[in-house]
Amino acid sequence: MARNITARSKDYSEWYLDVIKAGQLADYSPVKGAMVIRPTGYALWENMQADLDRRFKETGHVNAYFPLLIPESFMTKEAEHVEGFAPECAVVTHGGGKKLDEPLYIRPTSETIIGHMYSKWLTSWRELPILINQWANVLRWEMRTRLFLRTSEFLWQEGHTAHETEGEAQDETLKMLEVYRAFSEDVLAIPVIKGRKTEKEKFPGAVATYCIEGFMQDGKALQMGTSHNLGQNFARAFEIKFTGRDNTEQLAWTTSWGVSTRLVGALIMAHSDDDGLVVPPRLAPKLGVVVPLWKNEEERTAVEPFARQAFELLQSKLGALKVIWDADTDKRPADRFFGWVQQGIPFRLEIGPRDAAQGSVCLVTRHDRQKRILSLDELAGGIAGILETMQAELYQQALERRSAGTVRVDSWADFQQAIQERKWVEAHWDGTGATEAAIKEASKATIRCLPFDWADEPGVCVFSGQPSARRVLFATAY
Amino acid sequence: MARNITARSKDYSEWYLDVIKAGQLADYSPVKGAMVIRPTGYALWENMQADLDRRFKETGHVNAYFPLLIPESFMTKEAEHVEGFAPECAVVTHGGGKKLDEPLYIRPTSETIIGHMYSKWLTSWRELPILINQWANVLRWEMRTRLFLRTSEFLWQEGHTAHETEGEAQDETLKMLEVYRAFSEDVLAIPVIKGRKTEKEKFPGAVATYCIEGFMQDGKALQMGTSHNLGQNFARAFEIKFTGRDNTEQLAWTTSWGVSTRLVGALIMAHSDDDGLVVPPRLAPKLGVVVPLWKNEEERTAVEPFARQAFELLQSKLGALKVIWDADTDKRPADRFFGWVQQGIPFRLEIGPRDAAQGSVCLVTRHDRQKRILSLDELAGGIAGILETMQAELYQQALERRSAGTVRVDSWADFQQAIQERKWVEAHWDGTGATEAAIKEASKATIRCLPFDWADEPGVCVFSGQPSARRVLFATAY
Repeated sequence: MARNITARSKDYSEWYLDVIKAGQLADYSPVKGAMVIRPTGYALWENMQADLDRRFKETGHVNAYFPLLIPESFMTKEAEHVEGFAPECAVVTHGGGKKLDEPLYIRPTSETIIGHMYSKWLTSWRELPILINQWANVLRWEMRTRLFLRTSEFLWQEGHTAHETEGEAQDETLKMLEVYRAFSEDVLAIPVIKGRKTEKEKFPGAVATYCIEGFMQDGKALQMGTSHNLGQNFARAFEIKFTGRDNTEQLAWTTSWGVSTRLVGALIMAHSDDDGLVVPPRLAPKLGVVVPLWKNEEERTAVEPFARQAFELLQSKLGALKVIWDADTDKRPADRFFGWVQQGIPFRLEIGPRDAAQGSVCLVTRHDRQKRILSLDELAGGIAGILETMQAELYQQALERRSAGTVRVDSWADFQQAIQERKWVEAHWDGTGATEAAIKEASKATIRCLPFDWADEPGVCVFSGQPSARRVLFATAY
Repeated sequence: MARNITARSKDYSEWYLDVIKAGQLADYSPVKGAMVIRPTGYALWENMQADLDRRFKETGHVNAYFPLLIPESFMTKEAEHVEGFAPECAVVTHGGGKKLDEPLYIRPTSETIIGHMYSKWLTSWRELPILINQWANVLRWEMRTRLFLRTSEFLWQEGHTAHETEGEAQDETLKMLEVYRAFSEDVLAIPVIKGRKTEKEKFPGAVATYCIEGFMQDGKALQMGTSHNLGQNFARAFEIKFTGRDNTEQLAWTTSWGVSTRLVGALIMAHSDDDGLVVPPRLAPKLGVVVPLWKNEEERTAVEPFARQAFELLQSKLGALKVIWDADTDKRPADRFFGWVQQGIPFRLEIGPRDAAQGSVCLVTRHDRQKRILSLDELAGGIAGILETMQAELYQQALERRSAGTVRVDSWADFQQAIQERKWVEAHWDGTGATEAAIKEASKATIRCLPFDWADEPGVCVFSGQPSARRVLFATAY
């Protein structure tokens, strides 16, 4: 099997696409900007869905489904919203063989249609909060696409909640941001920075947008999830009203929050290496593969029963569907190993005649290629710990990459150099949109967020020299 | 609480909509023909999805995701297919603010785009079979809609498989039909008739379509799932080719099969009664509700600890999320009971001061309103059995309704009368499309299927008097 993956150091963009191709994660669709998510890639998304869905339900949310098509008149009700989204919408003008009276937009996001329904349903403060999530496809016309990271159609979840008070809406916004952080760090093994977006970068129609930002191996930032406090903007536009405790009519306070199949792109970019996909065990659809090795019938007789025993032992420890039996004994061992490596299976067991004779297996972990010779007892007792260590090491590795890739700068020259070297930059900013725009124009770097955890620290803006209360996070972003 | 549900005997259509409204299962969307699936209705679909998805995976299928938008040129590649579907498609003509070069169709089903991708991926017989399923939304323009049963946009799964031989494709087609039958009968508690569709009723582009048909309480039939043997029709149109074992180029044999949110409609129509929704326990998102009853603080002190104990006991037996605690102690007991009845919660526990003093609970099952006075020990030991009995009784009741609603007729006069009385009819048919069309024209009844299980039995066609080899199933259908 040829080494069909470009090295990261040679061409990171090519490497990314090669990993996707070699792992059969996704493919281009005949419609420009759309993608096909192949089974191996979809299994990653399914596991993300399952884990997030559990977290949403544990925080009191329920799922529902709202229509794909949104009347044009809805899109125009919230001024910032239509300005932000209408230009990138796909528009249905014909249906059932006839021209429609009113064009319908394929949802780019569902605040408008959901706002309309909430206004229909909501009557009293007793019905609040409304805590609904939707798993759906959305479409935003894109000309410059990249598989998973930026495609016209993508899959996502969008939470939409309505509350009695401003404070409750803000609490919800931050609670769901924390759900995203915990999921990213604990399951995807990707450390993230939590913070607030600037006015310029916030969601069209939101009062405030919060985000988690992840560090990719090329030093770029990826916005991995957002949570929006929509204030009463959508409630006003769609008349989401209720009779309050004091019997007066009031506008609800709403939020929305989402993550998408973009997370599969984040996963690839955070952990994979020049041999292909690497998947942290807590997310991996398959945890391991047993690769029995024999050259002839005699070896088969010696190896197969023992390898089966190891396979069944792993199934009983990890779950019947979590372990693969590699039946391709006609192929060269190196090709078989490499196939599983490219697919990011966390570990493989190599079992040949000598192993079987000694009653041991050779366990190779994907992320570090370490080999361990283990008896079946050692395997049974050790496999859970090996996987937990792998999960922790992947997180640690990603954290170290981010630390190594982040610098603190105090001059414009240093800023420009750091951005050119694809670093994350902690720098002072004067808080104005004008400076933000000028920095983006000059360096292509954007303010990723105003991190929650960074301490106040007076200084001067790296670009304008004006006073600054604290540093913010700058980076080039996907 | 007013009895807000029309009686079935008075107006079955109104009853159906009232059950949906009272149970908050779905609502109309502002776009004609589309619907909003509300959380209570969506939870039913989620549970159907989870169960079916497990069955698909157990039969070797994997999930993937294909694009929503299909180029017009794809739709026209299979002649019957385009004729069947193009007239009911929604068409995107503009995207990103520009008119598109080629119109894009919102998928009415995905044989074309998936066929295109399979032709790109498939090279050798070694890669067969391809066994992929997709959970997705599809859109078929409908002017006469009915919530869940017939809406423009609906949610479904569509399996698409490719095989080396004709026989394997046929085996797959029937295997998945059997999965649908088992799911309908074992989980939804709806007995179904398995059979083949006539030429007139088959899927546009299929060689043969198989279906399961369910009996609704008004005597109409509902097609609950279909499985299509597509032969080489789509393989020919989309060039799904592979190098065979004999090194020649061959066309694949493909299948497709699907069920949709229509099943939620089937569920409602099969089991619900004049008081609202009835859900079989194996599907129910929530199995029971504990309704503690007190009028003052003194009673609360006596009741609450004991009711909590019953609640926790049920949670430990049935799962923490499967049991509801009714905290609305300010409302009238009758209203609380009725609220849960309308939502179809399989059982409730009523616990008042006298119950608490006696250490017993009053368990009321939804489907038959039977009351049982049980000690906590009896509750713990008996609840699983009570739920299994309920599941079996619902199935039995549906089966008896179907038996009572099915007649065997041998004359055209009897046929017409039976159809007018909304019966299912077992009758002889001469096998011609002309007779099938004439019967439909005269009676509105269609041939639901040629049932697998019905024995050959020579006779004469009920309409034409021509020879017939066996009876087929006629009914008025949704």
